[in-house]
Formats: sequence, structure tokens, C-alpha cells
Amino acid sequence: MAEAYQIQSNGDTNSKPLLELYVKASGIDARRIGADLFCQEFWMELYALYEIGVARVEVKTVNVNSEAFKKNFLGAQPPIMIEEEKELTYTDNREIEGRIFHLAKEYNVPLFEKDPSAEKRIENLYRNFKLFLRAKVEHDKGKKEPSRVEDLPAQIKVHYNRVCEQLSNIDQLLSERKTRYLLGNSMTEYDCELMPRLHHIRIIGISLLGFDIPHNFTHLWNYILTAYRTAAFIESCPADQDIIHHYKEQMNLFTNQRETLQSPTKTHTIPEKVLSDIRTKGLAPDVNVH
Amino acid sequence: MAEAYQIQSNGDTNSKPLLELYVKASGIDARRIGADLFCQEFWMELYALYEIGVARVEVKTVNVNSEAFKKNFLGAQPPIMIEEEKELTYTDNREIEGRIFHLAKEYNVPLFEKDPSAEKRIENLYRNFKLFLRAKVEHDKGKKEPSRVEDLPAQIKVHYNRVCEQLSNIDQLLSERKTRYLLGNSMTEYDCELMPRLHHIRIIGISLLGFDIPHNFTHLWNYILTAYRTAAFIESCPADQDIIHHYKEQMNLFTNQRETLQSPTKTHTIPEKVLSDIRTKGLAPDVNVH
Repeated sequence: MAEAYQIQSNGDTNSKPLLELYVKASGIDARRIGADLFCQEFWMELYALYEIGVARVEVKTVNVNSEAFKKNFLGAQPPIMIEEEKELTYTDNREIEGRIFHLAKEYNVPLFEKDPSAEKRIENLYRNFKLFLRAKVEHDKGKKEPSRVEDLPAQIKVHYNRVCEQLSNIDQLLSERKTRYLLGNSMTEYDCELMPRLHHIRIIGISLLGFDIPHNFTHLWNYILTAYRTAAFIESCPADQDIIHHYKEQMNLFTNQRETLQSPTKTHTIPEKVLSDIRTKGLAPDVNVH
Repeated sequence: MAEAYQIQSNGDTNSKPLLELYVKASGIDARRIGADLFCQEFWMELYALYEIGVARVEVKTVNVNSEAFKKNFLGAQPPIMIEEEKELTYTDNREIEGRIFHLAKEYNVPLFEKDPSAEKRIENLYRNFKLFLRAKVEHDKGKKEPSRVEDLPAQIKVHYNRVCEQLSNIDQLLSERKTRYLLGNSMTEYDCELMPRLHHIRIIGISLLGFDIPHNFTHLWNYILTAYRTAAFIESCPADQDIIHHYKEQMNLFTNQRETLQSPTKTHTIPEKVLSDIRTKGLAPDVNVH
């Protein structure tokens, strides 16, 4: 039913709980990870526990349209987490997070620190991006290339402006805090939420909208660069083609063979100019050469 | 995109937040409610807030396979809650519950009281029922009628025994507490979780498994009767046919026209014998005639 995608194991202590995470497969190839944001979010959180030896983690991709999957999980949708030892299946995001939360608490992992001001800045970003995406794709229907943002009618531009405003707010927050992650120097649930969403915005922006995250948001780009250097993010990140395919499918857009036949690739680099700004501002001390 | 299923409104104060809940439609008829347990759970919680005038609530059924739905929600799955006023879309069970939790807290509605011992008793019930269901349906494949529980091989009977054991634990808890709902005389999130699951177990037990909740669990049956007299449950409850269709679809069972062509009906009565036991034990003072 499920193809083992990755088996991770560090150390052999039997006292560590084994958590199996079932994530949605790509619509292109069921052996590849799909672009479900909740799946990546929990995978990143579990990876954080795995890294410091708190849990053993196995991730499996599942084809949700297969009869075997439906029969085994009777209507539940990924992410699904199983803890065989306790005979527990967590099919609800609340339950999955609850279990991870308790493990983090037990081992003093600061994964769930609260920060209402950071929460406020990130909560609307993705919703507004989706509104912009839908409106612009509708507007561009039939065109060969995405229209330029400058030429958009006011009712679509308003969505674009909101997305930029929110990206700017996050850039500002990061510039004030001067931290590697949103709350400090270690990853929290907010990063597990924001990093995958920023990456989707970037990949879909470029491929479907003729839109890129503004290059002057240096702190935000530096944060994206941090994602690209964070194992929890890299491991759990779907290929560009699988992200694009996911959105095209939802919007009923013509899927050309560009995505489905290409070898999967992951864009984990940032524009040269931005990288040079980051270097100039001394934001990432380790960014010296490119 | 969405068919308005029910518009509920009590009073016209504008200060009350308007919460729109999108629930999964039945696979038989997109105008009817489907059998998604999380959708019913949140609907019941929202109903509790609506009943006491804390929120305005609108529920809409959506056909998740329609292009219009996919395009509008880009891959999100019901339950989805929208609060237009705040321009917020809650697509994650954690977010939906978070919003309901805060409203309940603000108005002192005891919907989220914690009770670890009740939680423990209900957490495994539904998982074990699904294991029993899957194993028995597999075993009965090709048979005209479901086999009798007594004739089951040991490896399937073990699942059956677990379900009965857990039902018995809940019966016991209710008999000790002598309360109308799990924690007391008003409904909490535990009831919103347990009541729909018990009802599914009952409907699927009878129709697909030749299994009924044991009739000697009088306190448990009395609790089921309470569900059938609770507006939040009745309003949000799918028809028997839609519940059966949901499970048949997941298990890839032959769907005969019995469910799809029948007028939808809801089993909200309990067996005569059980009703008489409830009366004899004086559990439900209002159960006098039948």
C-alpha cells in the first residue's frame, strides 16, 4: 500500500518511540513526495525530534487514490501518523500535533514556544497568496505567458499588494530580530509552517504567475536560504515539478509534459543579486563564496 | 461551488461572528451531508455556540471532486471554516478548533473542559472498530450475508473483543458518573467526538457486519439515546444511506442501488428491549412511553 520513501534511524535504543508518518505522494509518481503543506510541516517537526535522538521516524508516501490506501485508512487523509507500539493511529492534525507536542515537552525541545506577534505576521500570508494565484490565473487564461504584474487590473493588483505587504512584514520582523529562525536560533513550529509556504510561493510564483518574492526583502531571502540549509526542510521538500503539478491539478490547468517527464529537481538556490546583498549586509556569515 | 445546506441564524446582532463551515457532501447526492467525522464534530461544536447566541453559523456541503471546489480551495479538504469578516480561512483542524476554543473561552462556554480519564476511554474505540471492520469485511468477501460473530476465526475475534471491551469501559464510566453527557450535564468536545463515532459503529455494524452494540450496555445505549435527542447531533447527522455509502466506497465494496436510490432515512431510535431496560433502571426520567 505504501512505498517506503525513507527510513531514518539514528541509534538503536528501543526506548525511543517509533513514529511512522504517511505523507501524500506526488500525482506524477507515487514514489515521490507530494506538495501537501501539512505533511511537510509535521515531517519537519518529526525530523527535529529525530535529529536530537528523541524519536525514531519513518516516512512513507501513499497514493491516496489507490484502493489499498482507501481500504487501509477508511477515508482518513494524510498526514497520518502511526505509533504501532501504542497501537495508535493519529489521523487528525490536532492529534498528530498533540503527540509531537508531548514528546517535545517531555524532552525539553523548544519546538512549540509561543509568539503571538510572529503568529500574527504569518497567518494570512498563504491565504492571500492563494487569492492572488486564483485571480491571476483566471485573468491569464488563454494567454501564452503570464501577464506582467504592472499591467494587472486593480481588483487583482489588490491581492498582489497584500501578498507583498505581508512578505514585507515578515522581512521587517526578521530584520528586527536578527535571528536565524523566526523566534531564535533554533527551529520552531512557526518555521515548519512558514518555510514550506514561502517555498511554494516562490516556485509557483515563478512558474505560473511571473512573480518573484521582491529581491529587496534581503532578510526574508536570507531566511529562505536558511530553509535551504536546514536538513528538516530539505529532506521533506517535494521537487519543483511535484509542487507545480499539485497546483495545476487543483486549478484544472493543462498539464504539459514539462513537469511529468522531467527528472525531478529542487530549486534550493537564491538569486545571485540577493545572495550578494546578504553577503554585503553580513547577514549570513557563512555565505562567502558562491 | 457550494450548495447552501442550511442557514442558521438566531437573532440579528452584528457583533456575533459569522462562521461558515464547509462540510463534505455525500457521494450519493452532493446536496446531502456526507459521513466525515471531523465535519460532524466541528458542526456540533459550532452548533453549541450558535444555540446560546455566541456565533452565527452557516453550514455548506461541498462536492470535493468538483473542479469548482478544487479551484476555490486549492487542495484543502473539508472541514474548512471561513470567517469572512476577518478574512480568515481555517483549513486545518487545529486552526478550526483553536478558533472555536477561543470563542468558547471568551463566553465561558464549558465546551473544552479537560478530563484525561474520559479521553483515555474513548481514544482507541474507533481505531479498533475500523480494524474489526476491515478484517471482517475481508473475511466475509463473497458471502451473501455477514458471518456470525461466534463463527469468526480467532484473529478476527480479537478485534471484535477489543471493540466490545472498549464499549464496556465507556458504559461503565457512564454508569459511575450518572451524567447526561460524558463530563456532566452539558455537552463537551468529547461528546462531539464520541457521539458520531458511536452512531457510525451502530449503523455500519448492523448493515455490514451483522454486529450490534451489545444490548446489555444500558448506560451506553442511554447515552446514544441522548445523542438522538441533542439538536447539535441530529442536525449534523448524515442519513444512514450516506454513512453506509461512505464506508462501502472506502472499502471498494459493491454499492447496490439500495443506498443510492432509497429516500434518505436516519436511524435515531434504539431497540425496544434496551429502551425498556433504560426505563426500568430509571436512567432517562423522560422515557415513559414509546
